[in-house]
Amino acid sequence: MENLNLKKLAEELNLSISTVSRALRDSHEIGEQTKQRVKALAKKLGFQPNPHASSLRKNKSKTIAVIVPEIENNFFSQVINGVEEVAQKKGYHVLIYLTHEDQGREIDILRLLRNGRVDGVMISVSNTTTSFEHLKAYKDADVPLVFFDRIYENLDVPRITTDDTEAAYKATEHLFKMGCKRVAYLSMSGNLSISSRRKRGYKRALEKYSLAENELTVECNMNDDENRKKISLFLQQNKAVDGIFAAVEKLAVNSYQVCHDLKLNIPNDIKVVSFSNLAAAALFDPPLSAIVQPAYEIGKEATTILFKIIDDKVLLPTENNVIIPSILVERKSTSRQPRQ
Amino acid sequence: MENLNLKKLAEELNLSISTVSRALRDSHEIGEQTKQRVKALAKKLGFQPNPHASSLRKNKSKTIAVIVPEIENNFFSQVINGVEEVAQKKGYHVLIYLTHEDQGREIDILRLLRNGRVDGVMISVSNTTTSFEHLKAYKDADVPLVFFDRIYENLDVPRITTDDTEAAYKATEHLFKMGCKRVAYLSMSGNLSISSRRKRGYKRALEKYSLAENELTVECNMNDDENRKKISLFLQQNKAVDGIFAAVEKLAVNSYQVCHDLKLNIPNDIKVVSFSNLAAAALFDPPLSAIVQPAYEIGKEATTILFKIIDDKVLLPTENNVIIPSILVERKSTSRQPRQ
Repeated sequence: MENLNLKKLAEELNLSISTVSRALRDSHEIGEQTKQRVKALAKKLGFQPNPHASSLRKNKSKTIAVIVPEIENNFFSQVINGVEEVAQKKGYHVLIYLTHEDQGREIDILRLLRNGRVDGVMISVSNTTTSFEHLKAYKDADVPLVFFDRIYENLDVPRITTDDTEAAYKATEHLFKMGCKRVAYLSMSGNLSISSRRKRGYKRALEKYSLAENELTVECNMNDDENRKKISLFLQQNKAVDGIFAAVEKLAVNSYQVCHDLKLNIPNDIKVVSFSNLAAAALFDPPLSAIVQPAYEIGKEATTILFKIIDDKVLLPTENNVIIPSILVERKSTSRQPRQ
Repeated sequence: MENLNLKKLAEELNLSISTVSRALRDSHEIGEQTKQRVKALAKKLGFQPNPHASSLRKNKSKTIAVIVPEIENNFFSQVINGVEEVAQKKGYHVLIYLTHEDQGREIDILRLLRNGRVDGVMISVSNTTTSFEHLKAYKDADVPLVFFDRIYENLDVPRITTDDTEAAYKATEHLFKMGCKRVAYLSMSGNLSISSRRKRGYKRALEKYSLAENELTVECNMNDDENRKKISLFLQQNKAVDGIFAAVEKLAVNSYQVCHDLKLNIPNDIKVVSFSNLAAAALFDPPLSAIVQPAYEIGKEATTILFKIIDDKVLLPTENNVIIPSILVERKSTSRQPRQ
């Protein structure tokens, strides 16, 4: 019932359902003028707030959910530690849901969470997600929502990310500075905005160094065996390649194995740099140069902003789009050494 | 009310509360004779089952919970993948809760879960857990419960573990076979049964090789800096040590860093073997010999058994104590090489 009323009001006033809902709840996020317009029309149309829905909002579950694609990647487990740090101080429980990079599961989980089981949701979108209706529906249901890392750009929801484009630019540039001439980019398949942002950084570095014609991308996936075959074939067919920039840690691990099999010495024959939050990357043979994402900070910041929404507090304009920079850690896998 | 009645029946009949509860629900796990004794006394005492509790059992949430100490360790993330594999086929959602090795959080989470939010719980106990009342209370509340990996031995709950003692024996023996004379054991502090099982395996190998007087244990904790200092001091004070068996991966990583700082060559000066489920252990310098636990299988098996309990199916006697063996993967960190 309430949703129908909200929809009617929203259409009539040319506002989003969520704005109407917030205006009726006197949220600080909505301007005074808008609130008055909404309330006036609600009164005129005899709008009755659904008492159940309000009680859901008041009767807090003291629980938030964080939805991530996987946890074998240290990035996400570090994000979750940051989430729990903030949640625990506020006396909240955290539910962790895994999509396993599956859009179907993501849809199921969001549907499950729309019924008031949690007070708010943080999500990093699966890489197979191609339609975004479930995210829109969730936002329209007016349950507090925050995106982190892998965002859906066309939805007006606060987002916490790192500077993927700049970090990818830095990584690629680092390879050139260490003497590489032909740098290949190993990307993960899927429809993620971070993939395209990272690729953009790679391409910008090529352009900066007037090497745009040298663009070489190998599209990989979640399957290690397939990736190794693909990378191996690629390196055998492109013997001039002397640098690899891996979009995710998994692909750096695959590359190390392939280089070992092909008896390519890292860093003498080929240099490798990767996005990676694996502490043990420093123990690799050779130690892996890595772009380390501020995972813990992303988790803390996303949760802090989610609680502001839950508590109907004003978000600062900057809090709608928080970008926390990554750091390039240079190790031996990209070091400049005389060729033997 | 129901719990009081159950308690009275249990005391009177000298049975556990959970047995009484199952007998009243006609569970297949309880023998016919016991069922009749329970039902007869229940009738005599005018026992009224709590209608709310039964409806909770029938009105399934289609959700199970898995409680783990942390997820930065690959072992637990692989267990969770196994859990989700089984749960998804059955149309169940999985809630993941982290205790961060904190008994207080573990108690809070179990209290939260006793209210019917989930149909069953799998738990790997935190290493700071010293009292087990919360686990007993949970079991007495008759919510299906399964232990995995880190179990509490004095509670009659199905448990799925690996052969920690045998695996630790194998790892220590492997070091001796590769030429080590003085093997130190790096243990994690805490009260876990797996710690004592692993230590038992280490000691048995020492005894087998008549080296019992050479027992050397370094007790470590979750703090990397402290561990490194401790291991460094230990190795400087015990220069005869030529082998390290690390109870957990984290301590192998700490050891690698210390050996690097002390300019001790692995495996020439000192050999290292560790429990580890890190795929990238093969890329370490040198590749790390590891006892790989059947994490994914443990997750699958634990979930399969949990569903049997939820569905009131008969457990095979072997399903009350499932032990899935670990494998020793030999790599260069323990290889026999002539000393330089």
